[in-house]
Amino acid sequence: MTAAPQIISETTVRARCAALLVPSEVFPESRRVETITLDLGGIPGTRHHGFTRKAGPREPWYARGMEMRSGRALTIVSVEELPMIAAGMNVPAIEPEWIGANVVLAGIPRLSWLPAGTRLIFADATVVVEAQNAPCHISGKSVARHADPEGKVAGLALEFPKKAQGLRGLVASVERPGIIHTGDNVTAHLPPQRIYAGA
Amino acid sequence: MTAAPQIISETTVRARCAALLVPSEVFPESRRVETITLDLGGIPGTRHHGFTRKAGPREPWYARGMEMRSGRALTIVSVEELPMIAAGMNVPAIEPEWIGANVVLAGIPRLSWLPAGTRLIFADATVVVEAQNAPCHISGKSVARHADPEGKVAGLALEFPKKAQGLRGLVASVERPGIIHTGDNVTAHLPPQRIYAGA
Repeated sequence: MTAAPQIISETTVRARCAALLVPSEVFPESRRVETITLDLGGIPGTRHHGFTRKAGPREPWYARGMEMRSGRALTIVSVEELPMIAAGMNVPAIEPEWIGANVVLAGIPRLSWLPAGTRLIFADATVVVEAQNAPCHISGKSVARHADPEGKVAGLALEFPKKAQGLRGLVASVERPGIIHTGDNVTAHLPPQRIYAGA
Repeated sequence: MTAAPQIISETTVRARCAALLVPSEVFPESRRVETITLDLGGIPGTRHHGFTRKAGPREPWYARGMEMRSGRALTIVSVEELPMIAAGMNVPAIEPEWIGANVVLAGIPRLSWLPAGTRLIFADATVVVEAQNAPCHISGKSVARHADPEGKVAGLALEFPKKAQGLRGLVASVERPGIIHTGDNVTAHLPPQRIYAGA
């Protein structure tokens, strides 16, 4: 018999929706909007909308192009973590627009560490955390283009995936469709947490 | 600044698919089959198939009948935990058929505690753990009907939701569609585990 795992009960964290963004014409960038109307697939009409997507370089264990469950409808970053990435890269700031974020939250320390299954409850919609987002070189190139438009810093694009590790926010799916508003109060409802030690 | 959370790296646990079941004519029961062909919505043609479902008594915070993300396409129980529920209820056994299980795994101690985001990798398909399943009184009535067909034990149905707490297995979604087979080796791939202590 395995020892009972450590358990932390359900908890909540209060936050605020600091900004909302939808994809812009320039991949992977996004642009600010006041509201987003979410359906169950995410943001209608956008690249990451839908319950499924094609497997890509993030899933080298699957055949490229295989239709798979998505879990990446929305990307969420935080007011607190973006400056930590910027500090690590030695640039003045990193804007959510540059890395294609859809939601910017304020008030959740270490947003990226919220466990899968956390519900982010907006006034009229709810999204579910699927996983921590893994920083990629495409966002790195976009950061370098904006933070260093004259290309003075060698290798800046490659710094992003390294320095953003554990700080790049979350990917999420929609549980309850509805309109989300810039300025909304948001409650993060964490599931019971346990370290699985049965292995 | 919040202290860095406790982290346990990605780990794997080896298991075996001991049985597969599909819904029977009698809700909530299921019946054994040799193989199941999963599509991205779960088991085609069954009650829990699909990416969305109607909100019910499990979600009292939503309007009854609201279309919401499902996360309950499959229910998974374990060879190790079902006897623990039976012992708690003082009945000889609990069969996966009685409580509508779709997959019975062997070899994962405390299956119910696998964290959300765990991938269960079969030879030709992969499913993602969404959450621990919460035992309900409908399954309790089915258990009582089978374990005590003459109705000799008062209140047996209500014992199930109590004694199955933390032992009733998992609900899951399909990530990679394909055929799963009774007897398949299964690898549980756990995400990095952390206790979120930022609150």
